[in-house]
Amino acid sequence: MFAEIISIGDELLTGQKVNTNAGFICSELAGAGIPVQRIIACADNVDAIQEQFRESLERAMLVIVTGGLGPTRDDMTKQSAQQFLNRELVVDRQTYERTLDRYKLLGKKPVSSLCENAMVIGDSVVVQNDEGLAPGMIIACEERFQGHYLVLLPGVPREMKSMMRNSVLPYFSGLCGTVIVHSHIKTTGIGEASLAKIIVEIENTLPDGTSLAYLPHTAGVSLRVSSVGTDRSSVEHDNREITDAIVSAARHFVYATSDISLEELVGSLLLKEGVTIATAESCTGGLIAGRLTDVPGSSGYFEQGFVVYSNASKEKNLGVRRETIETCGAVSEEVAAEMAEGCLQRSGVHMAVSSTGIAGPDGGTELKPAGMVCLGLAIRKEGEGVRTETETFVTRGDRLQNKLRFSEAALRMVWKALRS
Amino acid sequence: MFAEIISIGDELLTGQKVNTNAGFICSELAGAGIPVQRIIACADNVDAIQEQFRESLERAMLVIVTGGLGPTRDDMTKQSAQQFLNRELVVDRQTYERTLDRYKLLGKKPVSSLCENAMVIGDSVVVQNDEGLAPGMIIACEERFQGHYLVLLPGVPREMKSMMRNSVLPYFSGLCGTVIVHSHIKTTGIGEASLAKIIVEIENTLPDGTSLAYLPHTAGVSLRVSSVGTDRSSVEHDNREITDAIVSAARHFVYATSDISLEELVGSLLLKEGVTIATAESCTGGLIAGRLTDVPGSSGYFEQGFVVYSNASKEKNLGVRRETIETCGAVSEEVAAEMAEGCLQRSGVHMAVSSTGIAGPDGGTELKPAGMVCLGLAIRKEGEGVRTETETFVTRGDRLQNKLRFSEAALRMVWKALRS
Repeated sequence: MFAEIISIGDELLTGQKVNTNAGFICSELAGAGIPVQRIIACADNVDAIQEQFRESLERAMLVIVTGGLGPTRDDMTKQSAQQFLNRELVVDRQTYERTLDRYKLLGKKPVSSLCENAMVIGDSVVVQNDEGLAPGMIIACEERFQGHYLVLLPGVPREMKSMMRNSVLPYFSGLCGTVIVHSHIKTTGIGEASLAKIIVEIENTLPDGTSLAYLPHTAGVSLRVSSVGTDRSSVEHDNREITDAIVSAARHFVYATSDISLEELVGSLLLKEGVTIATAESCTGGLIAGRLTDVPGSSGYFEQGFVVYSNASKEKNLGVRRETIETCGAVSEEVAAEMAEGCLQRSGVHMAVSSTGIAGPDGGTELKPAGMVCLGLAIRKEGEGVRTETETFVTRGDRLQNKLRFSEAALRMVWKALRS
Repeated sequence: MFAEIISIGDELLTGQKVNTNAGFICSELAGAGIPVQRIIACADNVDAIQEQFRESLERAMLVIVTGGLGPTRDDMTKQSAQQFLNRELVVDRQTYERTLDRYKLLGKKPVSSLCENAMVIGDSVVVQNDEGLAPGMIIACEERFQGHYLVLLPGVPREMKSMMRNSVLPYFSGLCGTVIVHSHIKTTGIGEASLAKIIVEIENTLPDGTSLAYLPHTAGVSLRVSSVGTDRSSVEHDNREITDAIVSAARHFVYATSDISLEELVGSLLLKEGVTIATAESCTGGLIAGRLTDVPGSSGYFEQGFVVYSNASKEKNLGVRRETIETCGAVSEEVAAEMAEGCLQRSGVHMAVSSTGIAGPDGGTELKPAGMVCLGLAIRKEGEGVRTETETFVTRGDRLQNKLRFSEAALRMVWKALRS
């Protein structure tokens, strides 16, 4: 079974919106063993939409359409599909009652468009929308397109995603009698090419029905292992076996086997261990603190942070010695160590992490190029005093990429210290 | 003239990459008065590519293709186009010599694929690639597609963008004898709907050839005014007139008429005025400092920042009085004021900005809901002592959106103080 995706909306064709919905659907379908052969973005225009339905249904067994299901004048999808398929529109009672209940709950007066909203294409499987109003539809086509399916979903990403995951994928898996299992492997501190080298043998001998997707982003690489088959226990077995093999081969870089960020993992470890943390940042300019506090509940372990951009503020706030700065330079492991230690002392926490480097594009030298950072980590252990470690990390991106990767490297140091 | 965009690459169909190239091209073409009627993402497959060339050229006068021009096995675009158009491939001497020079410059040994890389489709206008190796092509079709154009560009965004702006758009403007002028208007502190209300009359009476695009993002709304016509002076006149009218109508919210961020503008004002700044952040967790230091050269005005998450650290680092916290609550304009003043005193800067609020999703109350922030700004003026202002700002997003909007509101306070 092949699929095509039609994304409807003028805003996609004027460059005002990037089509992220299609990427999500592709990724979900790929995991279900249904390859996508085309994505088409199409205007809010009945003729264009119907022409596209025809073209896509001629090629693909499954055509998933997003957008244009709302109540406004420029929402044309339902009307286009109804005419194209030559079917009646009927009221879906369940949708009608749900939306009525929702209006009552909000204390709003029901409006006449509620009824219009609950109209669906006859003989379709209605996909209930738990996140919004407009219902989705799975339509088994007839006559010329017998055996082909047209699926209509709203364009609001939150609604579409939940309907896709909770209804559409299970429907087609059920239809094909297939079971799908995914696992996520999150890595840090290794690039896509190096990771691919480490796991090349595993990748070359994947069992039938299991596929591996690399999802690289600025700060790291995520992997998704997807297994599809007809027998649940063997699908789960295959998936677990490959996941375990990858985790073992790349164990120095894998920080999680669920879809969480490094700061979320670090946060949960800090909370679990009852460890408090503070930050002392120069070149990252608050980004380490920012990422740590992006996690809800971070006030449970994050005490405070210093952004010490000038040398004077490094001395004054953290007690870095002028001599160290003059002898070793502001960007040095020595200064990073004193920053972390000073931060630890003054914050009364268990752990302090520091950064001093050159985010670029200017300010680099041959010995200390833009993209270089020195990191420090000071840890206070009961009865053992303070242990400090430092590290130098070099990357090569633009200013914002460098800052992000520096902060990733700092969080990585914290993670490694917490798991050891 | 209508256009279609074909984006080639398997990675677009597996969900590994989001098609941002198409959005850029749409936006550029819209500004040039060439509407896009479809975007198609298509696999690295000769048959599929050729079928798509045919379908798109049947509908559109201009078909822009990105991706698949590189040297690897799965790059199929050039070969597909050559067969489809039934033309020879010829060596483009200029491309060959440029790439040879580049290799010599890098001290690399020329490889045989350099020649292959320099092969272009016969009778095409070659688009030189200043950012990479693969040349682009503008091809005037013949026979069945007489009068239609096929444009091939690489998929690397940096290369594609520069070729699009420097060669492709000027070529088609020249062909149509048109002149295009854009202007950017950047606003802060106003939503799309409210902004639209303020400028509704201007928008309803735009002169022919001038269009207005809203580009909303999490922290604010940007506007782009595009004017197209045949006479440069009248195009420029129309564009300036509309831009001036919008800037005047929305003057309280417009911070720039060029495509820069609020932190870039604030940075340039601080530098120009010789004003130094420090930050004292609670709920924004370092994001204000982070944004200020995202700007290259920010060490010229950014002195230091405090991230004071706990009450104890607010007292210790900034001298906030325990009594104020107990009486007014940590989230209060009183605490924001003391944070800013304490930060100003301890940093020895001219200006200190502070934030204390509830980023959410938890921690809100009826009186102080998640999404509420109190901001403080303390300013030291020679001979006038310290002036402090405070502000409460409420928004309703998820945790990260709230943090971003809080930081935007804080930068907005700084901007307003600097321009007054």
